[in-house]
This record gives sequence, structure tokens and C-alpha cells, in this order.
Amino acid sequence: MRRAPEKGRYDDATVERILDRGLVAHVAFVDRGEPVCVPFLHARVERRLYLHGSRASRAMRILAAGEPACVSVTVVDGLVLARSVFEHSANYASVVAFGRFEAVEAAEEKAAALEAFTEKLLPGRWREARQPSAKELKATTVVALPLDEASAKVRTGPPSDDDTDDALLDVWAGEIPLLTSFGEPVPSPGLRAGIPLPKSVERLLGER
Amino acid sequence: MRRAPEKGRYDDATVERILDRGLVAHVAFVDRGEPVCVPFLHARVERRLYLHGSRASRAMRILAAGEPACVSVTVVDGLVLARSVFEHSANYASVVAFGRFEAVEAAEEKAAALEAFTEKLLPGRWREARQPSAKELKATTVVALPLDEASAKVRTGPPSDDDTDDALLDVWAGEIPLLTSFGEPVPSPGLRAGIPLPKSVERLLGER
Repeated sequence: MRRAPEKGRYDDATVERILDRGLVAHVAFVDRGEPVCVPFLHARVERRLYLHGSRASRAMRILAAGEPACVSVTVVDGLVLARSVFEHSANYASVVAFGRFEAVEAAEEKAAALEAFTEKLLPGRWREARQPSAKELKATTVVALPLDEASAKVRTGPPSDDDTDDALLDVWAGEIPLLTSFGEPVPSPGLRAGIPLPKSVERLLGER
Repeated sequence: MRRAPEKGRYDDATVERILDRGLVAHVAFVDRGEPVCVPFLHARVERRLYLHGSRASRAMRILAAGEPACVSVTVVDGLVLARSVFEHSANYASVVAFGRFEAVEAAEEKAAALEAFTEKLLPGRWREARQPSAKELKATTVVALPLDEASAKVRTGPPSDDDTDDALLDVWAGEIPLLTSFGEPVPSPGLRAGIPLPKSVERLLGER
């Protein structure tokens, strides 16, 4: 991405807002000397970022062992169309966090993390669905990254053409916002008749 | 992300389609022994994935030196709401590619990569905007990753609750599609009067 108009932002509130907006975190670690980058659903509680996965997953085992990791969450807000192709870019907000994950063993923190994953996917969903059993909790590895070393980058606004291009070129320039919305719910083929849409989904679609 | 319903897919066409859908690539590399993961705009031409950045960027210098890298591109297609919180997930498509980037020095390949970046952002835009000058081309580092070791993962369809939950729980289950669209163009504050919206943007918005 173009460097010029970016602003590094390090305040906690900006970092947390971007993490909460992004559904997917890309998590990098080193496996036998080589970099690996894997997408995860994630959730934040206070100053800890959580991931979960199967106990059998190689990535989860490396992260749970406390190997150095880097987490990147990026949200794209628009296309930036400049007068010169060189200044084309995207408006976005991203967080990069460094550190070592810790395996979460305490049942209470593990359950709180699972609640955060579910509530992040869809607010209100945790109380509508069946809570995890002891067996399910045991089969899931949850890891937490303390957000001690996290920074944000944000690009907003119009393109940054130079003054000569601004003055001389008859080329349209501006931003095209990128919007995210939700479509019509697709009921599970096995859903029994007479089960209505839940409140959580109604609220989500009411925001359309 | 939940492992069970995923399918690994290795055919070239699937990998290419996912790369072309995702605007942002998360690129991991090792810097002084530690993993780093950075978001980039990217573009694909045939079996090469391109990134560009400032010559001054540390990430670009490491990648251009041919250090081992891992690129991950992820597109989220929907929320998967299960009867149990444990089976909640997202439908998505992702590619993970391993390899070493090569610095692109040949002016012709560099220009073709810049055209691919611009056309990926907005088809038709390359011919509307001012082409890069020799000076601009020189200030930009372009690197290419041969797509020799790339694989895709795709999750689609309904949640995977177990039979007991299907039969016994009165909880709605299904998928909520996640949609991306474009908003009203915001002209650059410096745009002179009388410059109309370009054809590329009209086509983009015509698809709304």
C-alpha cells in the first residue's frame, strides 16, 4: 500500500476499534525456519486477542507453545482513484501486533473467549445457541495474545496526486467507498419447520 | 476457523479465482528471527503474484532479497450460525502460497505489474489515468512470487451441527451471506468542475 498518506496510530482505542471491525486475523509464525501465515477468526477481550482451533492443528500447537507470532487485521474502506495510476491506492485501517500467544487453560477464561468469538460473529448469539459441553471445550485449543506491542495504520481521504497532475489532468479523482452488508438468511437444509429467525439475525438485518 | 467442513483444493483455477477476488494479501516473512505479517495490495498475472511498495520500505527490501515468504489471501462469504455455539463459523475462501519473491527489474514486466494493480482495483482504470513516469517507476519496487506452492481452502454451505442437536434443539441454524458493494463516489476536494465520472466507475456502480 502507498506509504505517503498513511498515519501510524498507536493509541489503544484505535487499535481495539480496528481489531473489533475485522472478522479475520492473519497470523504469522515460524515453522522450521520458514514463515507461515494462516487466517483465523479472532476476538478481543480487553487487552487480549484470542484465537481458537482444533487441538490437532499444527498452527495451534506452535502458537500455544509460545513461539513468536505476528497478527495482522486489515479492513478495506474504499478505492482511492487518483489522476495518475501511480497514486492509486485503497483506504484502509490495519493493526499489526507482535508477541507470544499463551495457551488458555482456565475453564472460565476459555468459556469467556468462546463467548467473545460467538458474540463477535453475531451480537446476542451466545445466549441463543447451545453452550459448549465439557467435551467440546476440551477439544478446542484457545490461545491469547497480550496486546502489548500493537500499532495501527489508517489511510483515509482523497488521493494524493501532485499539484501538476491536479492542475493539468482532466481525469476524475476521488474515493469509492467499499460497503459490507448482509444478504437474505439461508436456513440450514435440516432446519425443522416452525423455528423462526432469531432476534440476533433480525437485529443484524434491521441494520440493512 | 473450524476444520471439519473445509476442503483443501489445489487446482490452479480455484487458487487464481480466490487471489483475484481478494484485494488485500497478508505477506509473512522473517525479520531478525521474528515473524512479520504485513498487508499489501496485490495483483496476479498468469502464475505470478505481484506486490509493490516504496524502495525505502523494510518489508519490500526483505522480500526483494528473496527471503522465504508466505502469502495469504482470504475472502469471507458469510456467517455460519449453528445450533451449538461450538459449530459457529464463517464461510470463506483462502489461499496460502509459499515461496521466494523476485525483484522485478525489467521495465516491461514492471509496467505490466502496475497495469495489473490498477486494473485489479478498478477494471478499465489503467487507460483513464496518467501512466507512470520513468521516475515513478524507478521509485517503486515491484516483486513477484511464482505460484508454484499454493493451495486453497474453501468452506461453503450450512453449519455442521451433530445429529442430536439437529433433532432436539429449537435453535435457528443457517448462513447469513456477507455482501460487498460500492457506495456513492466522493470526488477529490481539488477536482476541477466539469470533469465527469469516468466509464470505469460508471460500470462499477452499474453493477450495484
